Amino acid sequence: MNINVIPYAAASRPELTENKTVVVIDVLRATSVMLTALSNGAREIVPAISPEEALHKSFLYDVEEVVLGGERNAMKIEGFHLGNSPLDYTEKNISGKTIVITTTNGTKALNSSLNAKKVLIGAFLNANAVVEAIKDEDEVVLFCSGTNNSFSLDDGMCAAMIINKLSKTKEVHLTDFARLLLTTFRTNPDNLELLLKDCYHLNLLKQKGFEKDVTFCLQNSLYNIVPQMNLINKSIQ
Amino acid sequence: MNINVIPYAAASRPELTENKTVVVIDVLRATSVMLTALSNGAREIVPAISPEEALHKSFLYDVEEVVLGGERNAMKIEGFHLGNSPLDYTEKNISGKTIVITTTNGTKALNSSLNAKKVLIGAFLNANAVVEAIKDEDEVVLFCSGTNNSFSLDDGMCAAMIINKLSKTKEVHLTDFARLLLTTFRTNPDNLELLLKDCYHLNLLKQKGFEKDVTFCLQNSLYNIVPQMNLINKSIQ
Repeated sequence: MNINVIPYAAASRPELTENKTVVVIDVLRATSVMLTALSNGAREIVPAISPEEALHKSFLYDVEEVVLGGERNAMKIEGFHLGNSPLDYTEKNISGKTIVITTTNGTKALNSSLNAKKVLIGAFLNANAVVEAIKDEDEVVLFCSGTNNSFSLDDGMCAAMIINKLSKTKEVHLTDFARLLLTTFRTNPDNLELLLKDCYHLNLLKQKGFEKDVTFCLQNSLYNIVPQMNLINKSIQ
Repeated sequence: MNINVIPYAAASRPELTENKTVVVIDVLRATSVMLTALSNGAREIVPAISPEEALHKSFLYDVEEVVLGGERNAMKIEGFHLGNSPLDYTEKNISGKTIVITTTNGTKALNSSLNAKKVLIGAFLNANAVVEAIKDEDEVVLFCSGTNNSFSLDDGMCAAMIINKLSKTKEVHLTDFARLLLTTFRTNPDNLELLLKDCYHLNLLKQKGFEKDVTFCLQNSLYNIVPQMNLINKSIQ
């Protein structure tokens, strides 16, 4: 299995994702939110690139059927139902609903992957399930969404955890960037908190009062689902 | 001191280099060649983005004054005087000459840095001198050229060596990507060969018969110069 890792959304190019099995990772917090919402019974997720597009897409649904979610600068968007905290995506809030969501980095990575063979949703929360879902693929791309068009260590260490798990049962051929992530991950494979103690985005979220979200998102394999993007209508289920 | 690292030329954007002190790194082999040529008495280096541009630029000089150098797919370009092997840039071959050079990745990184405050040339061969040259700067960008529009571990570990040396005497504020490189570097700070044993580009060069070049380029601080790009006429001295 060949594994490449894209370091952040702005560093992607069409040839990196074309016809590959792509796992989009945005640990803090877009893909963790999506996993939580679908695990708690959301019908589907519809990603949108901007708040305006999210609003526009939400009009396609009955008002009782749709929840508008997402963030700008980590905060809830004015007029939206929910922000980007997975803890808000409870069964009570979103069961049976379509979630139209816009986030700064995760939705960009999804949008850059539309030429893939398959687009899956990954995070620490479903790491084992991702490994199981991709273990027989030949060409895998782990797409780290990053933060503000830069590499973010939380996404990188999630990619590395997936590579580390895969490498225990499969022969993996890694690009230099995948190798770099794995080497750093293996300095502390059992201590994510320590691995991520200097992560800029993680510390920023803590400063903004989202410490509980951070703790929640760092849980290894809480969920056993691997949502997939429908490449025609772009919804995630 | 704030330190960012750009993972490869295609991942750069103008705002990452604007008004920063940029160190362009292309260990295998463009910046190692430049350092060797200038250490052996070349008058200046003129980077060119393509073989055609190199030829065009060479016409601006008397035929006895100019040497055409560079590579495509690691091999010498037909009709050029020299390839991209530092061992060919001997005093006898290039002393007093202007070198017009085109390489696949290094010249792209130089070209993407023209909005910088200052552009310096770095490699393992002048790591200590680079540290000395930038130690009082506030905003440093280590620009890894990469290989085929992807991250290359040789450039990354050179950036990490520079960061590691700086961190011993200065307070450094690292982006997540700089931190990732440093963590991997510190797993084997005294054994570059081991750190780079899986580096794709390094192994490709060995396969193509350039093992001596690789050994040469991995030498730590053989030279004590830090060439700088003249941002007006783009030559490097």
